[in-house]
Amino acid sequence: METPDYPRDATQEVLVQAGPLKELLTKLYVKQGMFKVEAEMAAARQVEADLRGIHSHGCSATGRYLNAIRMGDIDPRGQTLTITKTPAIALLDGSRNLGHVASTRATLMAIEMAREVGTGTVAVKNSQHFGAASVYALMAAKAGMIGYCTTSTGGATVAAYGSRKPGTANNAFAWAAPVRSGAPFCLDMACAASSWGKIHSQKIYGGVVPTGWTLDADGNSTTDPAAAKILMPAAGARGYGLAFVSSLLAGPLAGGHMPIHKSRSPEADGSEHFFYVIDFSKFVDPEVFYKELEGSMTDIRQLPPVEGLDRVRLPGDMEWEREQAWTTAGIPLHREHLRELAEAAAKAKLTVPWEV
Amino acid sequence: METPDYPRDATQEVLVQAGPLKELLTKLYVKQGMFKVEAEMAAARQVEADLRGIHSHGCSATGRYLNAIRMGDIDPRGQTLTITKTPAIALLDGSRNLGHVASTRATLMAIEMAREVGTGTVAVKNSQHFGAASVYALMAAKAGMIGYCTTSTGGATVAAYGSRKPGTANNAFAWAAPVRSGAPFCLDMACAASSWGKIHSQKIYGGVVPTGWTLDADGNSTTDPAAAKILMPAAGARGYGLAFVSSLLAGPLAGGHMPIHKSRSPEADGSEHFFYVIDFSKFVDPEVFYKELEGSMTDIRQLPPVEGLDRVRLPGDMEWEREQAWTTAGIPLHREHLRELAEAAAKAKLTVPWEV
Repeated sequence: METPDYPRDATQEVLVQAGPLKELLTKLYVKQGMFKVEAEMAAARQVEADLRGIHSHGCSATGRYLNAIRMGDIDPRGQTLTITKTPAIALLDGSRNLGHVASTRATLMAIEMAREVGTGTVAVKNSQHFGAASVYALMAAKAGMIGYCTTSTGGATVAAYGSRKPGTANNAFAWAAPVRSGAPFCLDMACAASSWGKIHSQKIYGGVVPTGWTLDADGNSTTDPAAAKILMPAAGARGYGLAFVSSLLAGPLAGGHMPIHKSRSPEADGSEHFFYVIDFSKFVDPEVFYKELEGSMTDIRQLPPVEGLDRVRLPGDMEWEREQAWTTAGIPLHREHLRELAEAAAKAKLTVPWEV
Repeated sequence: METPDYPRDATQEVLVQAGPLKELLTKLYVKQGMFKVEAEMAAARQVEADLRGIHSHGCSATGRYLNAIRMGDIDPRGQTLTITKTPAIALLDGSRNLGHVASTRATLMAIEMAREVGTGTVAVKNSQHFGAASVYALMAAKAGMIGYCTTSTGGATVAAYGSRKPGTANNAFAWAAPVRSGAPFCLDMACAASSWGKIHSQKIYGGVVPTGWTLDADGNSTTDPAAAKILMPAAGARGYGLAFVSSLLAGPLAGGHMPIHKSRSPEADGSEHFFYVIDFSKFVDPEVFYKELEGSMTDIRQLPPVEGLDRVRLPGDMEWEREQAWTTAGIPLHREHLRELAEAAAKAKLTVPWEV
């Protein structure tokens, strides 16, 4: 049950530079009432996702966020509140602002706590979609620390192990660890056989869903992305268990609900997040840590690849290669996503940094 | 790529009561030089694993531990040392004693720190095999907290994703969360398609290994448990990534090596562990947390099961059912395991609590 990469087709894509894209998103959010500094946080996290090729959690989501602001589900002025705090943990209230805002603040807070006592754990309640998990784990890595985060993702859409009915959500989580040069380690995975974003991508690129990934509304196996209503857990009992853990940390731990108790739209139900940052320099000599980590990464990358593969990669290598290439060449974005973004820009009387 | 349960065959098993078994193990360790209080820790953790049906990490490992003490790889008098400590983290040195000792102390220390600041994170270096990960996560759950732990497990024996050569180890990790009555949530998983313990069980029960689990020494797929030398990662890139994370936390974070840099026997290379405990009462009202967690567990268990299954279970349910039943009926242990244990007992001039 492998996860093929997102579909790619240059004829359906346009190259857009990261800087101007971030500016456009910032302006769109400011026009909808967000404070500039917070709009910039949201725009930065979304463009970071696009730069790594996680398009389902990049600017393709902007239109949906803007709509949720207009509908009143996302509060563009909602302030991140600190509900409780110790030297090692905090609980924040996202006040229904875009999840990227509270999540950026939560990660920075966890990094600060880790710098003092070795770890920082921050749970966020009453938030909204936070985009790609990896961008927060990588914020910790950029600060020279190990980062972990997970998020709730709405109601139950993933079959319970041993059932054809949904029992858990398709939670995503990410782990990242820094290196002194080159690609940091970054695992960003969902607990189901696929993310809904990938199913959606297959739909707009006209593809099919691999067998075993999805069930239709009646619990029958389907490969039609339009008919898919229930995802299967990754690796059976393990994806099921990992989804449950994620839902627990980014849910009841923050005073929120488990997915099986969420039945409204993700925006109406809101979202919870969980961040854990470890400052390894509080445990060991960082030079010793880096030498061992980097040496093992080099040795793994030098293993002989299977037939058909150019080389062995670590989680995060592919995304880092994209980030390096696309930072100069521009990000290849699907015309369909750009069309939605251009419509939003036109409504806000903003110009877009690509030819329409 | 599902994980079938351990094989069972009543004709090859004997029922042994938990209490007398724990006493026997304690005496065996004391005879080999361990302090009684530490021998009891090790015996308790091993019998807890057996009671949950995780026989590969229960008393079947005792003979191997005793042998490693005699060989000088495990130091029965090694004291658990605190190398560094803050209010939220600690690094311990296991001093090459049985891993159960430092791990029990590390978990208790993490629980204490969590009670003060909300979380406790403890890494252990220079330790030895700690048995089943779930027993430590469950210690946290018994203290009314969320527990996570992972451990290193020797050299690289799991194929890197995209290669037929080993790149990571078969790390195990566990998550547990408490409930006020009934089975706590407890996910205990390895990152490869199977544990080596299960492969060994298939060998002694005369079974075969499911297709896709293992490669032979040359990197060819095999179903013969005797020929299996390399495991495949669970769910491809995900098990590969999770194994890497576990190795990082229970390795370089404690000043130890990554699996690809370990080449001696697990006893000679030693083992590192990582423990993380969260006191959720520092985040939320525990009554609210329990109500949401327990309610969702009940709702998931009441989903309709697939054909052939009596009901839907959560991770840990099956093990908890065994623990309930076997605490009174006795633990069904394989004659082969008991024969080894009886030999060790005879050498130490101890009687065994079963008929030989």
